[in-house]
Amino acid sequence: MLSKEEITEWFKSLQDNICSALEKEDANGSSNTAVKFKEDKWEREEGGGGRTRIFQNGSIIEKGGVNFSAVHGDVPAFLTNENPSQNSNKDTFYATGVSIVIHPRNPMMPIIHMNVRYFEMSNGVWWFGGGIDLTPHYVNEEDARFFHQAMKTACDKHAPNYYTDFKKWADDYFFIPHRKEARGVGGIFFDKLNQSSGRSKDQLFAFVQEVGNAFAPTYTSLMAKNKDLPFTEANKQWQLLRRGRYVEFNLVYDKGTKFGLETNGRIESILMSLPTTAGWEYNVVPAPNSPEEKTLSLLKKGISWV
Amino acid sequence: MLSKEEITEWFKSLQDNICSALEKEDANGSSNTAVKFKEDKWEREEGGGGRTRIFQNGSIIEKGGVNFSAVHGDVPAFLTNENPSQNSNKDTFYATGVSIVIHPRNPMMPIIHMNVRYFEMSNGVWWFGGGIDLTPHYVNEEDARFFHQAMKTACDKHAPNYYTDFKKWADDYFFIPHRKEARGVGGIFFDKLNQSSGRSKDQLFAFVQEVGNAFAPTYTSLMAKNKDLPFTEANKQWQLLRRGRYVEFNLVYDKGTKFGLETNGRIESILMSLPTTAGWEYNVVPAPNSPEEKTLSLLKKGISWV
Repeated sequence: MLSKEEITEWFKSLQDNICSALEKEDANGSSNTAVKFKEDKWEREEGGGGRTRIFQNGSIIEKGGVNFSAVHGDVPAFLTNENPSQNSNKDTFYATGVSIVIHPRNPMMPIIHMNVRYFEMSNGVWWFGGGIDLTPHYVNEEDARFFHQAMKTACDKHAPNYYTDFKKWADDYFFIPHRKEARGVGGIFFDKLNQSSGRSKDQLFAFVQEVGNAFAPTYTSLMAKNKDLPFTEANKQWQLLRRGRYVEFNLVYDKGTKFGLETNGRIESILMSLPTTAGWEYNVVPAPNSPEEKTLSLLKKGISWV
Repeated sequence: MLSKEEITEWFKSLQDNICSALEKEDANGSSNTAVKFKEDKWEREEGGGGRTRIFQNGSIIEKGGVNFSAVHGDVPAFLTNENPSQNSNKDTFYATGVSIVIHPRNPMMPIIHMNVRYFEMSNGVWWFGGGIDLTPHYVNEEDARFFHQAMKTACDKHAPNYYTDFKKWADDYFFIPHRKEARGVGGIFFDKLNQSSGRSKDQLFAFVQEVGNAFAPTYTSLMAKNKDLPFTEANKQWQLLRRGRYVEFNLVYDKGTKFGLETNGRIESILMSLPTTAGWEYNVVPAPNSPEEKTLSLLKKGISWV
């Protein structure tokens, strides 16, 4: 039987592998710097801890975080309330996973996010969750197709419905209701996958590993392809506004952020997802037929990219 | 009997007066521009509307909004749920007020916020609410004392306990729990003031008018005093981080913002409170005895400024 220790060790190795791949690709950027991730190990008072790894001022990556954590303790009240029949106050939980957000310098390169996680309670309940989504400042349709194809390839190895189902879930999840805008071109999202889905724990773990392993080759390809694209001051200004939307999504809607803020998580690890700079201007309306207008027209649910 | 129409008209005139005073003071800035507020009138589908006035790229003020609104309609579900005994689904509500946020260019000048509002329902329930708070990027104790003295002077004309009570309420309200920081040096905050406070509607309106009228002379004094203070690039960088905290407060905790987002308010009017630029850096720890460290030490509850 797959143990939480095995899952935890695999998530740690995933963090290591992704950090190495990003460092290597960033070193190919034009400034020829060799920036490394900086690690902060932290402990949680109530149990467990993590390894926060931050990448700052790289050649291609402006700010990125690749975080591992494994925390445990008494089941928080809000989870007990969600499933009162399934657990008692005496139950304990264990949660482990990897969370990533990468903000590139070049406004022509997309922001990316990934989270893969495992949760279990002492009463025997367990599940996997996760997702990857791409947030271009300017939607490049070729990149969006490439990204979705990579997600579909990973999904298709495990179940024929995964890509369709989890792509729709991502469309619904990575959405900013008050802007009536998708935050980006979506990707895949899934939560509370367990034996009731008809798959074993081993099978689901293999799928989560597939998703985790898809991250580095997919994003480093986008880094290599886009790193030298030219851009203007106006493009940088638009990037600030799109980063502002990213901040709005993460602070108002993102469940991981909310969970962290409400459970007294390590605030600097949670908010590593926020960009170095972001901006807000009153009532910006892009010019007709501009790349900015085209981008807005593609930030919606239900677009078929593959 | 004081009518909602009289209150509404007064809020409109307050908006006019504050806009004039800010335009006049901003014209005294070093760039000698004569920026004016730009107005967008808007209507709410469910009833009512507003006058959003935005000031951008002034000499002293980088971005500011002075908004008036008067909206009405069916009582929203979340209010009905809050007070199930007091109203039925058939009740209607009327809400009017003025909301202001001013972000100055100079990092040595504080951000300011004011809101004054009136709410009534068709079942006869009514109340006033409001507040003013000051958010320095760098806490200047003289300015904080000046500001609190102005608030105390306004409060003391109406009730001996108002300043003490409403200053504490502001300390509790303008607080960022996940940072364990006050957002600024506080001010006054009050909500749901009605006849049960022992004051008549006329008396409470006179108090709200006093608060509203205190805004312009108080902030224009701070503009005049601080507009030419020298600052460095490092000061601008710190300003970005403090603006980041302002964004965190407004998007995660501010009740007016939440109300607006949840009731399908006019999004550009609600989010005018966000700064032109803001920033986040991982795990910033100010140098010992630096002005930044001193500022953090003063961003807490319970400081007596007068």
